[in-house]
Amino acid sequence: MHQSRPCRLAIFAATVTIIALSPAAAKERGGTAKPDQPMVNRIIDEGTNHSQVMVTVQHLTDVIGPRLTNSPSMRTAEAWTQRRFADWGLTNVHKEGFAFGRGWSIERSSVRMTTPRVVQLTAIPIAWTPGTNGTALSAAVIVAPMARERDFAKWRGKLSGKIVMLTRPGTGDEPAEPAFKRLSGEDIARLDRFQQPNYDPDAADRRMKRLDFSKKLDAFLKSEGAVATATMAYHDGKLVSGEGYLFGVGDTPALPGVQIAAEDYRRLARLAKAGPAPTLEIVSDVRFDDSDAQAYNIIADIPGTDPKAGYVMAGAHLDSWVAADGAADNAAGSAMIMEAARILAATGVRPKRTIRFALWSGEEQGILGSMAYVTRHLATRGSPNDPPQTGMQSYYGFSQKWPITPLPGHADLAAYFNIDNGSGKLRGLYAETNPAVVPIFRDWLSPFASMGASNVVLRPTGGTDHVFLQQVGVPGFQFIQDPLDYGSRIHHTSADTFDHLKADDMRQASIVLASVLLSAANADKALPRTPLPTKPVVTDPYGYSDDDD
Amino acid sequence: MHQSRPCRLAIFAATVTIIALSPAAAKERGGTAKPDQPMVNRIIDEGTNHSQVMVTVQHLTDVIGPRLTNSPSMRTAEAWTQRRFADWGLTNVHKEGFAFGRGWSIERSSVRMTTPRVVQLTAIPIAWTPGTNGTALSAAVIVAPMARERDFAKWRGKLSGKIVMLTRPGTGDEPAEPAFKRLSGEDIARLDRFQQPNYDPDAADRRMKRLDFSKKLDAFLKSEGAVATATMAYHDGKLVSGEGYLFGVGDTPALPGVQIAAEDYRRLARLAKAGPAPTLEIVSDVRFDDSDAQAYNIIADIPGTDPKAGYVMAGAHLDSWVAADGAADNAAGSAMIMEAARILAATGVRPKRTIRFALWSGEEQGILGSMAYVTRHLATRGSPNDPPQTGMQSYYGFSQKWPITPLPGHADLAAYFNIDNGSGKLRGLYAETNPAVVPIFRDWLSPFASMGASNVVLRPTGGTDHVFLQQVGVPGFQFIQDPLDYGSRIHHTSADTFDHLKADDMRQASIVLASVLLSAANADKALPRTPLPTKPVVTDPYGYSDDDD
Repeated sequence: MHQSRPCRLAIFAATVTIIALSPAAAKERGGTAKPDQPMVNRIIDEGTNHSQVMVTVQHLTDVIGPRLTNSPSMRTAEAWTQRRFADWGLTNVHKEGFAFGRGWSIERSSVRMTTPRVVQLTAIPIAWTPGTNGTALSAAVIVAPMARERDFAKWRGKLSGKIVMLTRPGTGDEPAEPAFKRLSGEDIARLDRFQQPNYDPDAADRRMKRLDFSKKLDAFLKSEGAVATATMAYHDGKLVSGEGYLFGVGDTPALPGVQIAAEDYRRLARLAKAGPAPTLEIVSDVRFDDSDAQAYNIIADIPGTDPKAGYVMAGAHLDSWVAADGAADNAAGSAMIMEAARILAATGVRPKRTIRFALWSGEEQGILGSMAYVTRHLATRGSPNDPPQTGMQSYYGFSQKWPITPLPGHADLAAYFNIDNGSGKLRGLYAETNPAVVPIFRDWLSPFASMGASNVVLRPTGGTDHVFLQQVGVPGFQFIQDPLDYGSRIHHTSADTFDHLKADDMRQASIVLASVLLSAANADKALPRTPLPTKPVVTDPYGYSDDDD
Repeated sequence: MHQSRPCRLAIFAATVTIIALSPAAAKERGGTAKPDQPMVNRIIDEGTNHSQVMVTVQHLTDVIGPRLTNSPSMRTAEAWTQRRFADWGLTNVHKEGFAFGRGWSIERSSVRMTTPRVVQLTAIPIAWTPGTNGTALSAAVIVAPMARERDFAKWRGKLSGKIVMLTRPGTGDEPAEPAFKRLSGEDIARLDRFQQPNYDPDAADRRMKRLDFSKKLDAFLKSEGAVATATMAYHDGKLVSGEGYLFGVGDTPALPGVQIAAEDYRRLARLAKAGPAPTLEIVSDVRFDDSDAQAYNIIADIPGTDPKAGYVMAGAHLDSWVAADGAADNAAGSAMIMEAARILAATGVRPKRTIRFALWSGEEQGILGSMAYVTRHLATRGSPNDPPQTGMQSYYGFSQKWPITPLPGHADLAAYFNIDNGSGKLRGLYAETNPAVVPIFRDWLSPFASMGASNVVLRPTGGTDHVFLQQVGVPGFQFIQDPLDYGSRIHHTSADTFDHLKADDMRQASIVLASVLLSAANADKALPRTPLPTKPVVTDPYGYSDDDD
């Protein structure tokens, strides 16, 4: 893998390895530190009266736009964020590459029903599917849901020349909760529970088979002479998202695919049932870019004064889906990370530990960027004889690989904090079933009670970039955030634009994050760790929470 | 105006005029009647076990689609609904024409931002605006909100060659209520209040001036060399609606107009502010049809046995906007009306009074269809010397015209019931500040307590086809309906499709409506009337309720 600049921390790493590998010694290093109150005030001033967070996130969303991993816009974002970090005086600013796949972007798209009447539908090309070669593809639809290979028999001989609708249409939703929500004290109290890890030994196999099936389905459709596929968006209310996972070089599906808004898809399905089957006209003008198959994480540091003290880190994924601008998911978190870096740099602080900022790539395709960071800097999983895995395979497979072998840098990372739950203000921290950190977190958050951010709860969270760090025994955490409308209508959808970000929340989050990082960097001892796992505990990194990414 | 078949009831009308014109006599005719219980059971059986309401509404929405007044689809719907009424054995099935304006429909539309980056936007041509002549119109945008003539000065000389964004972008919403809702007992109790009429003598003038302004704005934009207009959709969440009101022959605006989803519009506005102004590419392929400037209401009867007893009527507007299929607004109400007709016809019932079913046109452009029914059959307003009014003028002006002069048919209409609040089940009746009908309605609704439909509340409702009947002293009412997601995301929007209709609700509503109509038709006396208004009471027929159409 490519690393554009040498990672300074790798040097520190070797010096503290022996301590870190002993769980008992690691616990010794746990410790608390009250926040530095005058510094908290400087952080609040910088993050309030001189805030840049909305300027940053506006550029990321409105100007740069969606940042699909390896797309041209993501390349722009990779360069722009590095420049910003450098402008603000951070050091060791660089990108770290990892194997990923193809670049892909949408130039133009249109899906119309043309018979029995003309309707301009709401639809989006599915990520990494091929286009229609600059022309309009017209064909009748057929509703042919297929979920496993034995379903193929039913449709053999019936798909030639057809646009195949792959989703069962189902029925509409009846949303009984408000779309926009802030957490009450009761909501937060409900989060304060220890959760036993669940272990389903067959889950990974099932998921691998499903991945495998998507390629077999594509081959079957191609061999049957189908001309395109259509799936149904999973939100009602005309929102589309267009996720696709066949991003590897050589994995591109044979057929153009579109995701159609639920209302439009179900209309097609009803008309197809009543007959004659409607005709669709698909224009999907997409562009592949194979100039560089590597994806890149962005790294930037505020250097520490004690080379033996290791580092703390905060991260957010910079990549997004393309139905809108990836604002709440996750330009918001990226901008909070960048703003915390800017605030701390502006104060001229010299922390004991280095504070590292990471903007991950490939999160939406299986937490691949932070996984690459783990295997490069923290720990390897599995044996050299394991069959190689790529793309989503490596995501589903990572948790199944044994043994975990810490790298020299494993002990250096004293704490990792992730942001990936939208633009809502921080309400505190998830202690992630690590009760030993609870009193420490309470201390660190104590200046922010009046900002609503002083809660610490035990609940674990999943589905984003702290998970694979946690799995190899590094203390990785996520913040509690007000959900706003993230889960109800924004997450991955065509409505994920700057509009749905809340400036007051973004400023508060940047301030709290900066202060927590500084407390962690200056703490007498590194955070208490949970023991290094010796057997699988959780099969699905996406498996925990309601507000997962 | 054109009437395709003679209206049989006009003959009855003359015979009862003298009674009707005396308020005291009219009150004499008020009276109650318990529902015919065996007939209620037959209605429930027919409407439950042999229901056709979802078949009807599926055809209106999926197959016929949106039914913009005078559009080709509305013509199809006018013919199809007459055939259905005739198939079911109704009599006097005919259409009644009234002066309206142009037909208009969308063939294809696309709005893309092409600089500073490419984004396929969510947008819709504004109804009755001209297209882009089969080509793509590309131009820079300028945000130039104008609300009155004095705003023109600020923008003079700056609009040439521009797409003018007319709406102030504002900020996003934070929906604190569930999108989908059923009425609780408490909700219904809150509706039970008498409401004083409010009279704002200047409101009509203000509205007339606003109408006038929209034409002056169009002329100004044209003279300045602007190339198109864009407005912002009023729902967040990527919903569009595309209402437009310049439908008269000769009223068509000079410039193509598009309504852009809020998220996409606000992004354009932010980029335009930061500069350079984004470029839009608009394709609006629309079609005008001037083959017949008349709109048509559809009428069908179940004849009464007593030619002196007059008639009762239920109505719903068949026309819709075009962003989706006009399902909840108001194919749902139309299908309930049709199903009540079918159910009653299927029972072979011979009511005392004729039961008339009306499907109105032009409701969305100012309640014009039922207004035409009023002036043809019930009462004229104003003097012959009043200046002629067309289109929306006639809507805003109607309530201001004095005197009200009842026609011979005025007394014949014993009760009118309107359906226009989505597909939610009926929860009872609004007595519309006519307390004398409350005990009668309670009797009529008594069999439906277990269906949740036995509530009677005094609250008035506005904004739809009972209003102009009420205003001339005819007892016109609307049903209380469960709101579902009508107000939150469906009303006029691109999500108003069959998906959001609830079959159980539609069946219940058809049953309750059929039974209420039969009770009204067989009542010993006609419903108590409020006195014929002698001065303006309400200036705005849209002015009352939260759940107006």
